[in-house]
Amino acid sequence: MRHSLAVLVLNKPGVLARISGLLSRRMFNIESIAAGYTEDPNITRITLVVQGDDHILYQVVKQLSKLVDVIKIHELASSDSINRELALIKVRAGDAGRRADIVNIVDIFRASVVDVNSETMVIELTGTEEKLMPFVPYSGTWIVEMVRTGKISLDRGPGAAKDAPDSYLT
Amino acid sequence: MRHSLAVLVLNKPGVLARISGLLSRRMFNIESIAAGYTEDPNITRITLVVQGDDHILYQVVKQLSKLVDVIKIHELASSDSINRELALIKVRAGDAGRRADIVNIVDIFRASVVDVNSETMVIELTGTEEKLMPFVPYSGTWIVEMVRTGKISLDRGPGAAKDAPDSYLT
Repeated sequence: MRHSLAVLVLNKPGVLARISGLLSRRMFNIESIAAGYTEDPNITRITLVVQGDDHILYQVVKQLSKLVDVIKIHELASSDSINRELALIKVRAGDAGRRADIVNIVDIFRASVVDVNSETMVIELTGTEEKLMPFVPYSGTWIVEMVRTGKISLDRGPGAAKDAPDSYLT
Repeated sequence: MRHSLAVLVLNKPGVLARISGLLSRRMFNIESIAAGYTEDPNITRITLVVQGDDHILYQVVKQLSKLVDVIKIHELASSDSINRELALIKVRAGDAGRRADIVNIVDIFRASVVDVNSETMVIELTGTEEKLMPFVPYSGTWIVEMVRTGKISLDRGPGAAKDAPDSYLT
């Protein structure tokens, strides 16, 4: 099963290494990871998407939550959360016909062109994974390189992850 | 000094743990990290923003590039790259006056409202760090929670990171 976890940690060197080390020792593959400061600069929020057995995940979350600098771990239900990710895609756009094609696709995906030179264009694309992924076969062999942020998520409703009940620990 | 690194790795369990472990042992603080599949599903691109001494970074990159599953490490010059990150921000918007204020700020920042309920709104914001950061004091004490992806970057110009010369290794 695929799980999205929001992990709130104190912003100290080594926290990420301990978390990723624990996950890899338990053979969890990290599909995506996104981490940045929150509204409180002392706290970093890490969004992890992991694949693995539910029972083992329960144990891993328990172990993670015991780490000194981990403040909170919260699982986000995909049905009840807002999920977004961001991609930058560089595509070959050497001739005018190709450029027109690309601009059409960019419009369809409500993306935007953020850089152009004589050979390539860079496209910025935001959305759920379901929106982003069809773009790749669309633009197909035109892609020079692509970078993605990994998914970030917030629960719907007025609550915050930091105040959510510790569902894994009861 | 602050450095942005693009690390191309084979998509295998444990790679991230080895990279973050190596950085933390050398006392590099990872300011932000963003990782997701590229156009090739076997390859993950990790964008790291790290703070640390230039000379030590040189050694770290050398060590990282020796790791089995690391294909390429490329430093992105901030002056010559396209940098973006994505944030989701949940703000309190209980009364109508507050909601109008928020919609105004959202327009100024060219952000968008992606979820609303009777108490809160969720705002999606994309841009450079310089664009994103002023939003926080603006919306100030209204913020319930915030999640950021960390920075992703592509070089300007037609080239791809995977074909860039190994500047660190010469």
